[in-house]
Amino acid sequence: MTFEPTVTIRVLHAHTDAMGIVYHGAILPWLEHARVEYMRARGLVYADLERAGLGLPVTELFVRYRAPGRHDDRVRVACRAERDGRARLRFEYRVEIEARAGRPVRILMAEATTRHACVRLSDGRPVRLPEALGAAIGSC
Amino acid sequence: MTFEPTVTIRVLHAHTDAMGIVYHGAILPWLEHARVEYMRARGLVYADLERAGLGLPVTELFVRYRAPGRHDDRVRVACRAERDGRARLRFEYRVEIEARAGRPVRILMAEATTRHACVRLSDGRPVRLPEALGAAIGSC
Amino acid sequence: MTFEPTVTIRVLHAHTDAMGIVYHGAILPWLEHARVEYMRARGLVYADLERAGLGLPVTELFVRYRAPGRHDDRVRVACRAERDGRARLRFEYRVEIEARAGRPVRILMAEATTRHACVRLSDGRPVRLPEALGAAIGSC
Amino acid sequence: MTFEPTVTIRVLHAHTDAMGIVYHGAILPWLEHARVEYMRARGLVYADLERAGLGLPVTELFVRYRAPGRHDDRVRVACRAERDGRARLRFEYRVEIEARAGRPVRILMAEATTRHACVRLSDGRPVRLPEALGAAIGSC
Repeated sequence: MTFEPTVTIRVLHAHTDAMGIVYHGAILPWLEHARVEYMRARGLVYADLERAGLGLPVTELFVRYRAPGRHDDRVRVACRAERDGRARLRFEYRVEIEARAGRPVRILMAEATTRHACVRLSDGRPVRLPEALGAAIGSC
Repeated sequence: MTFEPTVTIRVLHAHTDAMGIVYHGAILPWLEHARVEYMRARGLVYADLERAGLGLPVTELFVRYRAPGRHDDRVRVACRAERDGRARLRFEYRVEIEARAGRPVRILMAEATTRHACVRLSDGRPVRLPEALGAAIGSC
Repeated sequence: MTFEPTVTIRVLHAHTDAMGIVYHGAILPWLEHARVEYMRARGLVYADLERAGLGLPVTELFVRYRAPGRHDDRVRVACRAERDGRARLRFEYRVEIEARAGRPVRILMAEATTRHACVRLSDGRPVRLPEALGAAIGSC
Repeated sequence: MTFEPTVTIRVLHAHTDAMGIVYHGAILPWLEHARVEYMRARGLVYADLERAGLGLPVTELFVRYRAPGRHDDRVRVACRAERDGRARLRFEYRVEIEARAGRPVRILMAEATTRHACVRLSDGRPVRLPEALGAAIGSC
């Protein structure tokens, strides 16, 4: 189970703060984006899961910030996933700066893990991971 | 119809950007907060409106940025509202810095207007403003 | 001066709200992203401008919301720009949904305008637009 | 070292997502707000630290999400802090829903920890915690 590239992000002013670096909270939508594209690459459209009445809310989040990101950096998020029991998933991420000031670099900006429960959206109860999801994740 | 104080905001790193000032988009949730507290002060809980199947989505937004906000500023949002036809509302806002570096100041940071349609959440169709809402706004 | 495509956005949960649609404030970073890529396509790296001590803060913002965006929509932002006097710029944007539930659509989600002053970052004073910027914008 | 109440948050549409609950990333600015007010209550203005050339960037983040927050909930963040070696701090948080639909409740929404390095802003190098900061934290 290796890390696979998913999305590329341009660091905007919207992501930075007055310390001149990427705000620590700004990367969470990047991780979400990585997750949905990782699943889509395996034929699994997360929005279809929701249309079928299921969701994968984040139950735990861990981030280790390694190096500050800067405005206009180009950042790549690599990702891998695995089942975590009958009704749970875990995603791991590597957030890497791949270009700064127009030049290629390779700086590990952050490592992260999110855990997710598979739940029925109507009542929030945990349910078994659907076959298609388990298979998609299992195939990584 | 005069402006009335609603909410007080502490400017966080989360609101600022690498230019060292408040990011222009950061004030929109402040305006939302001002709206709901302005209505609540008139006995109208916006969330009750949604529980009744109605919403007030923003249809137009205008902001004029007057002076930059800074990290740790204390900001006050004043607000007023009026009906705008059968199914519409308009809110106006004054966003003022009232303390900087621990000292009282009075700096107009931004002026803004939002327009809202009253819609049925199930299908997004415009509907007449409910009595209670029209009355609450009318009473300002 | 026609609109040109700039960036493509995937609508994430991060962009949506409990009404089930894109939060009105979520599009502002999309507009920022459109601006910087529009300039980059003309050989002008906005971050270089900042390294040279200049900035283009937003002084006015106008958005008209035409149709709600949904989770997982694919959205395209088209953009055009023009000088607005010696020290000012104006950008206009069309935010269009180009795919929904995996099918091509063409829905105008929002139209927007931002106005910008060219300022010296050290003291916030307005300065004449640099040649390269004026020329790049002029060339559209 | 007990948890102390710091800030109270109104859950806005801005904080929620299309699943109808608080977006997991939305609470990070609440934790930041809790930290600065926790320090301010001990006579330590974090912005003064920055004016003196020091910062406390987040180096690690852990959140366990216990129960979903909802639009218009009133949420309270309690916080405690301790030194973590010569140049580090750790904050712990309890995010509790204290009112929902206008009625008092007591629901643990999330527990979180952030770790911070004390750094010189000019070059990002770690430095010993200033006396005033260590003493303020030590006094909890």
